[in-house]
Amino acid sequence: MTRVRIDLFLSLDGYAATAEPTPDNPMGEDWGRLTAAYAETRTFRKMVFGDTSGTGTTGIDESYAAAFFEGVGAEVMGAAMFGLHSFPDDPDWKGWWGDRPPFGTPVYVLTHTAPRPSIPMEGGTTFHFRNVAVDEVLAEATDAAGGLDVRVGGGIRTAREFLLAGLVDHLHLMIAPIILGRGTRFWDDLDGLELTHKVTTEVAESGTVHVNFTR
Amino acid sequence: MTRVRIDLFLSLDGYAATAEPTPDNPMGEDWGRLTAAYAETRTFRKMVFGDTSGTGTTGIDESYAAAFFEGVGAEVMGAAMFGLHSFPDDPDWKGWWGDRPPFGTPVYVLTHTAPRPSIPMEGGTTFHFRNVAVDEVLAEATDAAGGLDVRVGGGIRTAREFLLAGLVDHLHLMIAPIILGRGTRFWDDLDGLELTHKVTTEVAESGTVHVNFTR
Repeated sequence: MTRVRIDLFLSLDGYAATAEPTPDNPMGEDWGRLTAAYAETRTFRKMVFGDTSGTGTTGIDESYAAAFFEGVGAEVMGAAMFGLHSFPDDPDWKGWWGDRPPFGTPVYVLTHTAPRPSIPMEGGTTFHFRNVAVDEVLAEATDAAGGLDVRVGGGIRTAREFLLAGLVDHLHLMIAPIILGRGTRFWDDLDGLELTHKVTTEVAESGTVHVNFTR
Repeated sequence: MTRVRIDLFLSLDGYAATAEPTPDNPMGEDWGRLTAAYAETRTFRKMVFGDTSGTGTTGIDESYAAAFFEGVGAEVMGAAMFGLHSFPDDPDWKGWWGDRPPFGTPVYVLTHTAPRPSIPMEGGTTFHFRNVAVDEVLAEATDAAGGLDVRVGGGIRTAREFLLAGLVDHLHLMIAPIILGRGTRFWDDLDGLELTHKVTTEVAESGTVHVNFTR
């Protein structure tokens, strides 16, 4: 049965990234610090950097990184994560991930502007653009996933929208042991999530705290 | 050499307790949820509940609970933690802890009102009241500690005052895997603490995330 999954990076003080990404720093300038341990994993180096040498960490962070890419049949993301807010006037913008994005599935990009034509990419990824409600895009993504899971990839506002709508079966947080002091707040209005979901916590060799909310 | 220590309970979303304690709920009504795992430890049951039967948990939470009571020569706390805000008109108020408080040391209560006479209690605790700056009370507590550590017991505002003044050598956070959604925010303006202190993280059997900032 399809489950809806979210994986997010947070700081100890509950920020997901700086508030204002720029074209030069599409994820905001704190992104590197938030994701440092994850970027060291063998899976991330292979899937995102194309490093097939097998180098990278192999501990608890790696086990989560490997799971991240398993069993996902469709992805949903917000317009900002895809880059529509950073490059609103470029009709040929195809996302941040090059010709061969690491998704390998249909990716539904939520947008409040007029949807663009779909963009087929190498490696099985096709970007679709939808100006619809979250439950409606989730229904389409679930159909497309063919029994596999649907990931809500981000960004933080899109993830929170799905969480607040009660649509998420598995939330995985990677909390870096740093204090950002700025950015987009993740936790607001999510109290009670530990009542509808089972919570588990685990610390990786890197010091990253992995928190899982599962139902 | 005397070190300044703080131990605090937090929720995943960075709240220390509800904002408004009342005489019936001196620590705020979420306190029980925040401290549930700690209250189960063998040390806490013995030191705070007087349970000498040896029952209670014995894992990682317990090892922190035992360390909590070791090596402290003096304590500093805010007026609210002592109860002066809840019982401002009771000149005989002696704190929440009964005739034999679990401190066993001098305890310096910071107050902005006229200081009361010191109160000697059973078991080595004496409450002193001081209307002075944090560095001044810390100097007096350090003298009184005789080479042992000084603990800043709380509450959250007092702890933050010492942290923001750069006076704390060891901060131990016990993060319960719950989302409170209300209370007093801990993390504000503390970014950079991971640069002046070494951070370690550990998860207890209870799911509590222990985060230590040490210099």
